Amino acid sequence: LICSGLSGSSHAKSHEDNLNPGWWEKFIGPGCAIDTNKFYVICSNNLGGCYGTSGPSTINPVTRKPYGTTFPIMCLEDLVKAQFVLLDHLGIEKLHGVVGASLGGMTSIMSGVLFPDRVNHVVTISSCAKSHPTSIAMRYLQRRTIMSDPNWNYGHYYDKDYPKVGMKLAREIATITYRSGPEWDLRFGRERIDSSEPPSLCPNFVIESYLDYQGEKFCTKFDPNSLLYISKAMDLFDVSEDYGSLTEGLGRITCPVLVLGVQTDILFPIWQQRQLAKALQDAGNKWVTYYELNSIFGHDTFLLDLNGVGAAIKGFLESGKVTCDNPGNT
Amino acid sequence: LICSGLSGSSHAKSHEDNLNPGWWEKFIGPGCAIDTNKFYVICSNNLGGCYGTSGPSTINPVTRKPYGTTFPIMCLEDLVKAQFVLLDHLGIEKLHGVVGASLGGMTSIMSGVLFPDRVNHVVTISSCAKSHPTSIAMRYLQRRTIMSDPNWNYGHYYDKDYPKVGMKLAREIATITYRSGPEWDLRFGRERIDSSEPPSLCPNFVIESYLDYQGEKFCTKFDPNSLLYISKAMDLFDVSEDYGSLTEGLGRITCPVLVLGVQTDILFPIWQQRQLAKALQDAGNKWVTYYELNSIFGHDTFLLDLNGVGAAIKGFLESGKVTCDNPGNT
Repeated sequence: LICSGLSGSSHAKSHEDNLNPGWWEKFIGPGCAIDTNKFYVICSNNLGGCYGTSGPSTINPVTRKPYGTTFPIMCLEDLVKAQFVLLDHLGIEKLHGVVGASLGGMTSIMSGVLFPDRVNHVVTISSCAKSHPTSIAMRYLQRRTIMSDPNWNYGHYYDKDYPKVGMKLAREIATITYRSGPEWDLRFGRERIDSSEPPSLCPNFVIESYLDYQGEKFCTKFDPNSLLYISKAMDLFDVSEDYGSLTEGLGRITCPVLVLGVQTDILFPIWQQRQLAKALQDAGNKWVTYYELNSIFGHDTFLLDLNGVGAAIKGFLESGKVTCDNPGNT
Repeated sequence: LICSGLSGSSHAKSHEDNLNPGWWEKFIGPGCAIDTNKFYVICSNNLGGCYGTSGPSTINPVTRKPYGTTFPIMCLEDLVKAQFVLLDHLGIEKLHGVVGASLGGMTSIMSGVLFPDRVNHVVTISSCAKSHPTSIAMRYLQRRTIMSDPNWNYGHYYDKDYPKVGMKLAREIATITYRSGPEWDLRFGRERIDSSEPPSLCPNFVIESYLDYQGEKFCTKFDPNSLLYISKAMDLFDVSEDYGSLTEGLGRITCPVLVLGVQTDILFPIWQQRQLAKALQDAGNKWVTYYELNSIFGHDTFLLDLNGVGAAIKGFLESGKVTCDNPGNT
């Protein structure tokens, strides 16, 4: 089971009915990190999203209008339970592994916590077991820009003007949290858009036009209300709250866990990855594998670093449950 | 000469005509870090600001209306030269020191570069000699939110509705760059505003209401156009561009320099402070003093850490020009 990120869809990999490359195109396939010669791959859309599974843009059968902000507030448990309803429907009792990054890493952890008997491997990349106030702050700002757009209209914009300005700004803020300073320094440095033009209040540096482009490209591809609901579910995520403590909660996971972190990640910082691996070990898990990647791609590393991320997943998923008496330091 | 930050005013310290505490109240006074028993202190408003020195809200004598966005684009050199016009007017030929943090650190460096014969000590705290693309990105987002507010009206809002929504959002974004994750974790953690209320799309966590409060408090205290102009000047700052290379530019400074950096600063990260100290030494400056503070207050440390910041300034300003043959590593 592959769990997608906040804005990802079930289309992780191209297939004959949809030849467009998926968001994890090169990670999945015969002989790949997630080897389709060995594993059957399932990836569903997230509850609350806008690509298929119910969300705020879904028509409410009672009113025959989109739910908008009458859609209920969700938590990560709801997203995970929706996935397991699908598995029940498909008649799948046990998963070889649940793999995810970012939001998908949170849901993969939560799968192991909620359904320990149905999950044999948990892979979490650049995620956490408890949202940090800085991540809440970053997502709050994105919600704020959307909800400040007059066209947002308290979430009832589906038959009216689209809150494009707010949604674009939200994505520009998000983009800052997805990459890293070192990457931008290498990629853009202080390069000007047009060095013959005198500076003005408008964008002058290539980094500015990059952010503008990222906002423009995304802002009409994803439903603003879906962003509000899913980002709120991420804020609310705290395994310790539901189970008394992080150790109690994470102790419910009985299978091996791969924790992968990136040293340049601003949104899910590396110390949070270390804490997660440590908390799993403290909870008595003897099958914790922990890696730190020094990629310059920040939070987006899971989409870009096929070598670093791919080999770790492949090696982990294709290993048995080996108990090590001295698990070493993480 | 004390150089203020982006939103700071000339009111660094209370005095008999204005008893309100200044933004560096406890750093300045008899026996303090900046000892008024020993030094005469000058602090002017920044060019482009809204507290006195000319800026976009100043009345253009020709049109008898505020300049708005007809105000010319400025660079850091303009801000520094305006300060030295004031010094000329006061009949001051030579300064014992130029001290500043953030934007004020940039202008203090630039004072030493432009007027090496008139400056005896340069103190730069949490600043840089060249704006990094990440800092440009953060400031770009703030400009974007202001300029996206329909009330901004291309900068001509002085006799119309004020662009409060955009300005408030801009300050909330800025606030994220001024503090640090570790501080927020200690101060707010995951504390709820009202734990008896079920979560909603509105703010639920105290960190959210903190950002809201910071935005609300500031948004009508500073002119949005001033923020646009000064933040653009900060983006354009690059000593290497004006003088061929960083070494050439910084080599113009002939006096001792104190470089102070904070390990939790996101906006002017610690590696940028190390680069600055190194570049000064590479340029042949034998009087570079470099400190790193491990304060949890991020970029705002210069306003809060009286002990760490204060002692360094005091020791540096009250020392002579001591040449050390082996300056050691920075």
